[in-house]
Amino acid sequence: MDPIVIVGGDAAGMSAASKFKREHPEREVVVFERGAYVSYAACGMPYYVKGEVASLDDLLTVTPEEFVEERGVDLRLHHEVVDVDAEERVVTVEGPDGRFTQSYDQVLVATGAHAVVPPFEGMDLAGVFTMHSLPEAEAVRDFLAAERPDSVAVVGGGYVGIEMAEAFDAHDVDVHLFEMLSHVMAPFGETVAKHVEDHLRDRGVHLHLDTAVERFVGDDRVTGVDTGESVVDVDLALVGVGVAPNTDLVEAAGVELGETGAIATDEYGRTNLPGVFAAGDCAEARHVVTGEPDHVPLALTANRAGRAIGQTMAGDETPVGDIAGTAVVKAFDLTAARTGIVDEDRAREAGFDPVSVTITAASRAHYYPGAEEITITMLGDRDSGRVLGATMVGREGVAKRIDTVAVALHEGATAVDLSYYDLAYAPPYSPVWDPVLTTAKVLDGKLG
Amino acid sequence: MDPIVIVGGDAAGMSAASKFKREHPEREVVVFERGAYVSYAACGMPYYVKGEVASLDDLLTVTPEEFVEERGVDLRLHHEVVDVDAEERVVTVEGPDGRFTQSYDQVLVATGAHAVVPPFEGMDLAGVFTMHSLPEAEAVRDFLAAERPDSVAVVGGGYVGIEMAEAFDAHDVDVHLFEMLSHVMAPFGETVAKHVEDHLRDRGVHLHLDTAVERFVGDDRVTGVDTGESVVDVDLALVGVGVAPNTDLVEAAGVELGETGAIATDEYGRTNLPGVFAAGDCAEARHVVTGEPDHVPLALTANRAGRAIGQTMAGDETPVGDIAGTAVVKAFDLTAARTGIVDEDRAREAGFDPVSVTITAASRAHYYPGAEEITITMLGDRDSGRVLGATMVGREGVAKRIDTVAVALHEGATAVDLSYYDLAYAPPYSPVWDPVLTTAKVLDGKLG
Repeated sequence: MDPIVIVGGDAAGMSAASKFKREHPEREVVVFERGAYVSYAACGMPYYVKGEVASLDDLLTVTPEEFVEERGVDLRLHHEVVDVDAEERVVTVEGPDGRFTQSYDQVLVATGAHAVVPPFEGMDLAGVFTMHSLPEAEAVRDFLAAERPDSVAVVGGGYVGIEMAEAFDAHDVDVHLFEMLSHVMAPFGETVAKHVEDHLRDRGVHLHLDTAVERFVGDDRVTGVDTGESVVDVDLALVGVGVAPNTDLVEAAGVELGETGAIATDEYGRTNLPGVFAAGDCAEARHVVTGEPDHVPLALTANRAGRAIGQTMAGDETPVGDIAGTAVVKAFDLTAARTGIVDEDRAREAGFDPVSVTITAASRAHYYPGAEEITITMLGDRDSGRVLGATMVGREGVAKRIDTVAVALHEGATAVDLSYYDLAYAPPYSPVWDPVLTTAKVLDGKLG
Repeated sequence: MDPIVIVGGDAAGMSAASKFKREHPEREVVVFERGAYVSYAACGMPYYVKGEVASLDDLLTVTPEEFVEERGVDLRLHHEVVDVDAEERVVTVEGPDGRFTQSYDQVLVATGAHAVVPPFEGMDLAGVFTMHSLPEAEAVRDFLAAERPDSVAVVGGGYVGIEMAEAFDAHDVDVHLFEMLSHVMAPFGETVAKHVEDHLRDRGVHLHLDTAVERFVGDDRVTGVDTGESVVDVDLALVGVGVAPNTDLVEAAGVELGETGAIATDEYGRTNLPGVFAAGDCAEARHVVTGEPDHVPLALTANRAGRAIGQTMAGDETPVGDIAGTAVVKAFDLTAARTGIVDEDRAREAGFDPVSVTITAASRAHYYPGAEEITITMLGDRDSGRVLGATMVGREGVAKRIDTVAVALHEGATAVDLSYYDLAYAPPYSPVWDPVLTTAKVLDGKLG
């Protein structure tokens, strides 16, 4: 029987390969990875640049050798799949030794995403970086060590921008953060954004909101950022304005994309072409609140879908699972988290009648030392009473508290349901009424 | 119309009083409290003794004056209800000015619980304390300050015993902890117990497991603990061997108790007698996993039931909510948490076919500094695949992670369901697969 072929050796691809081999050790699994790394923790790159993670090797979850020797995966680094012929079940591959074809029984497209490169003049100047791969992270860290820049322009106020601001600040580099929109961290909503912005300013970050970068200035090295109104002098620039799914390969092969621009899949990760699966940052997944396809490229989604598809390809049909868009970000001393639908316009588009409440409560019993404020915004649907999503921000107790709401979303819980969960209480960890319970109670009252 | 009468002015009673008055400001609510305090945070007492909470006043959530002046509650301190006549709807009260009767429209019995006083010889010696009220906490702290004891016997290895061991240790008092059973913290299961025991020993606590105290030794002050086999010299003793519901009043009135010995109630907190409600530490509640009545006297249960009953008495029928027995305890630098059914024998008694797994995972991404181990035990039911309960122990990320499982229990989730929740991930807070997800996956495999 022809082998299983996997295109792309990161989270989704290697999870699928490993799972399939566990189920069918006798079957052949070939992974083509165009780069030099597999299964690496991209989310750890800001902490590598910051210096908290010593070596790039620390970010490798499983080494290539382990995949080959312990898991029996036929892993081909530096091999790029350039064509998928779903009719003939053959992929065409460019490797160090030239071009060849490989027939397959089933194929998983796990090509990931790439950093969006904005059409700025000066993107090619020395000292201008994007960061979506280990070599890029290494280049940024090497630049910091070698050039000792005084100031950096971080372009984009999303996850990467916020985490990299912290990383640069740790090296005593003066940070200018540029965001086109009126707030950072758009997917987390305005309440979280304002808290994060205040905290960034407290930590000395220069925020340039509502500010579109027009070009980078410099001869061969970047020396400034031109916003049209002024030029800010910097000697380093990091552009993190989002990622886009890698879909060129599959589009050419006739695989359908969804409305989000990522690969459309069914609940088992199947594309429209027989024998062709897709998972990870290149693919859509079903949102648990709307029931509609969405594109939220995050690590757990990729790992989970890859594993499920490995199982399905092995003959045990396993859904890839719904997503809630749950996410958490460390922004210096703050933690910001979100799950579900947190934007009222988006909720209305999805057919809901959203009602929103925001409360601030303590992370510990009021009398217990060290309590911090947690601010929670929660959205509910007036018609059904369902909770639609929530955001949280605070200095402690945020990261895993959001999970309580995430589970409620998966279960289609109402605000009343959520307000009645028996959650953990002890003075060092929570008020008697956990802030989540309090928010749900207030939301329920407003849903009336 | 006759007033609402509430017997007992702590969490359940005052929550009900406040909620009822919000709904019906024009109606009269009379609260009889036999002590001098209302609405106090009993769970904070160990931290008051430890010294982290400066004053007893800090433990008062709402002051008596606030209840009277801001919430319009007719609060009578130092008034003990000595009889309930449910037929005539009259209570008999002993107050500072003598005995009187008060007729009522509806009555809530929120008499709480009391510390079990074991039948030891020497319980009346100076320096021997139980701790279930603010005056007792004050007495212990005063004793510490005045007598500067060198060593203390903590009798009982439950919540109170563990928290008080930490409190005494903070005063450089040598702690001997006596537990009759072979492990501390029985409701948390053996895995948690062993971790806590190792940690207590590391912190210098002398553990005497499988050791029943026979008597306290001393003339008028305690000087030792006699276990039958030896005498351990101590100059202070704290007995925390559990609590029992205060049911004498209602038993005499004809209110039925449940099998647990606490007051039997329906889902609205009604007892068998018309117009008589019960809530808080004196009452049962329905366990969400077994669907059977249970007695787990905890703060949230009392607050929640009181509030719901206030609403029901006001005419808006509101269930008191199910309990999952969710609890968390700080034991020096460790956090231990539980929810649901975590004992296999108990699960079998409830009609389940339990399967249990224990895993240890990191609290953060493996490469992120400061990661600690979290050990999770999870129980599932082989027939239904349902999750029945879990325990967790570790140095960080435990207290609110247990809530993920608690919500799953409320929703009757299976191990597969739980393994597919979209939980928050970022390197400083969790591995990609949250330890809860990993445990659920392993449990699902074993339930197979």
